[in-house]
Amino acid sequence: MSDTPYADGAAYVRGAFVPIADATIPVTDWGFTRSDAVYDVVHVFRGGFFRLGDHLDRFTRSMRARRLNPPEDRARMEAILHRCVALTGLSDSYVAMVALRGRPGVPGSRRPSDCVNHFVAYALPWIDVIPKDVQERGAHLWIASVPRVPDASVDPTVKNYQWSDLTTGLFEAHDHGFDTAILCDAEGHVTEGPGFNIFVVRDGAVITPDRGSLQGITRLSVLELCADLGIPATVAPIPRAVLEDEADEVFAATTAGGVMPVARIGRRILGNDRPGPISRRLREEYWRRHEAGWHRTPVRPLD
Amino acid sequence: MSDTPYADGAAYVRGAFVPIADATIPVTDWGFTRSDAVYDVVHVFRGGFFRLGDHLDRFTRSMRARRLNPPEDRARMEAILHRCVALTGLSDSYVAMVALRGRPGVPGSRRPSDCVNHFVAYALPWIDVIPKDVQERGAHLWIASVPRVPDASVDPTVKNYQWSDLTTGLFEAHDHGFDTAILCDAEGHVTEGPGFNIFVVRDGAVITPDRGSLQGITRLSVLELCADLGIPATVAPIPRAVLEDEADEVFAATTAGGVMPVARIGRRILGNDRPGPISRRLREEYWRRHEAGWHRTPVRPLD
Repeated sequence: MSDTPYADGAAYVRGAFVPIADATIPVTDWGFTRSDAVYDVVHVFRGGFFRLGDHLDRFTRSMRARRLNPPEDRARMEAILHRCVALTGLSDSYVAMVALRGRPGVPGSRRPSDCVNHFVAYALPWIDVIPKDVQERGAHLWIASVPRVPDASVDPTVKNYQWSDLTTGLFEAHDHGFDTAILCDAEGHVTEGPGFNIFVVRDGAVITPDRGSLQGITRLSVLELCADLGIPATVAPIPRAVLEDEADEVFAATTAGGVMPVARIGRRILGNDRPGPISRRLREEYWRRHEAGWHRTPVRPLD
Repeated sequence: MSDTPYADGAAYVRGAFVPIADATIPVTDWGFTRSDAVYDVVHVFRGGFFRLGDHLDRFTRSMRARRLNPPEDRARMEAILHRCVALTGLSDSYVAMVALRGRPGVPGSRRPSDCVNHFVAYALPWIDVIPKDVQERGAHLWIASVPRVPDASVDPTVKNYQWSDLTTGLFEAHDHGFDTAILCDAEGHVTEGPGFNIFVVRDGAVITPDRGSLQGITRLSVLELCADLGIPATVAPIPRAVLEDEADEVFAATTAGGVMPVARIGRRILGNDRPGPISRRLREEYWRRHEAGWHRTPVRPLD
C-alpha cells in the first residue's frame, strides 16, 4: 500500500478526504485556542472496528455535554470513519473522531454559541500507548504527585484533550525512569493515567475507580470479560494505599493497547516483577475474542 | 490596506510568514490533541506594543514550566511579532505567540520529550473581550456554578488553552442573559473569568485575587496605576461573599480590553447599574497613559 498517498493515514477535514499530512485546523480555531473540542478513538483490528457503536454513542454524549453540533449526522460520521480506514488500506488502525468549536460566524463575537462547529476524523497506523515489549514485561507505573483535575471542574467522562495534569504526571514518571503515570485526585483516590483506565486485582477480585476517569470502552470490555469468566469485578473508590500497598496485580486498559499488565507501582514490585495471572488471562481473552469477531463491524470497502 | 493578503491577519508558522487564513497546525499536533501548548497575547495600540518585554518574560516562564523549547530564541520571537504586525499594516492589533509540543520525532513514541516543539505567532485586528458598548454601560457578570480547576492540578499562571471550566461558566452566563462569567474555586474564593482578571473595590481600596488566576499584565498595570494614583491596592484571597454582597465596585482587566467596569454581579446591581468612579478613573488613566507612550515599543516597519 506504500504507493497510496494515504499510507501514513487518511483524514476528513472541512468536508473533504485528504492524506493525514494535509489534515490541519486553523491556529485560531477555538478547538485549539480554548481546547473546546471532544473526541473519541476506536480501533480497527484485522479489518474490523471494535465496538464502533459504543464509541459513537460516547462521542455523541460528549458532543451533547459540550453543546457541539457539527453538521454531519451519526450515519454520516460512521461512513466517514469507514472511508478513512479504507483509504489507508490498513487492517490495524487507530481511528479518531473530533468535534471542534470552530470560529465565530459572527465577526468579533466571543460567544461559543456563535461558532461554526465542525467534524474531523482520521485513521492512522495502530500505535500502542505502552509499547509491546513493555506490555510483555509489565509496565512500570509512577504515582504522580500532581492531583487529577476534579470531576466538578472538568467532567472526565466527556473525552477531552485537556491533558496538562496527565502530561505533568508523565514528565514526572519519565524523570524517575518509569514508563507512565497514574494520577490520584486531591482526596487521594486513584483516577486514571494518560490515555488509560486502571484496574487493581486484590484477593482474586477486580476493582476499577468510580471517579476521576473516563468510562473507557476497554474498561467496559474488561468488566464484561470478568462477568463471563466468573471473576468478581466492581467499580468503586480506590484509595491510593490500595494501589500502592495492597494490590496483588495491577493492569491498565485502553483502546490503543487493550489490557496492559503492570509489574511495578512506584518503588513496589508486584508478583515477582511480571504480569499477574488474572491480568494475563484477561489480556489473552481480550485478544482471543477479537480474533473470534467479538463486537466487530467490518470496515466497508471503497466503492 | 485591504489589497494586502495580510489585511485579515498575518501569521508565522513552520518558519514562514503567511496570511492568517493559511495559518494551520496538524490535527495530530500534541499542542491540539493534548492541549500541550502555552501562549501569550500582547496588544498593539496606535503602532506600539504595550509591555512587550513583560509579555515575552511571561511567555518564557510559561514555556519553561511546561518544558517547551522551540528553536526560535527570544530575539527571533520578538522580531517575528514585529513582522507579523507590520505585514498587516494594522495600527491596533491583538498579537498572539504560541509554543506547541508538536509531534514525536521518534516514530510511535508517546513521550512528550521526544516531540519537536514549534513556535507560532499571529497578529489580528483588535478584538475586545467585552464589546465597547458593554464596557460603557458596565458588564453583567454571572458567578458560575462550575469550580475553577485548582492551581495544584493546572497552574493558572502558565497561560494555557485549557478553557473547559471557563467555557462552561460562559455558557451558564449566556443562558442567564449575562455578558460573561466569573469562577470561584472549590473553597469559594474568587479566581478569574474567561480571559480576564477580576478586581473588587471596597471602601476605596482595590483587591484582586491571589490565587486561581493568571498574573495578568493588565492586572500588573492596574496595580501600578493604583500606586501612582494613591489608591490602596492588595493581592489577597477574595471570598465569594465579598464579590457578591460587599463590593462597592467591580472591574475586569485583560489585554484584549484593558480595564472593563462591571455594573452587575449575578442579581446584584452595583452603583446604580453603571461603572463606579474608581473603575472609571482607572480605565481613563489606563488609556490616557497609552496615548502618552506608557511602556511602548514602536512596531518596526518592514525592511
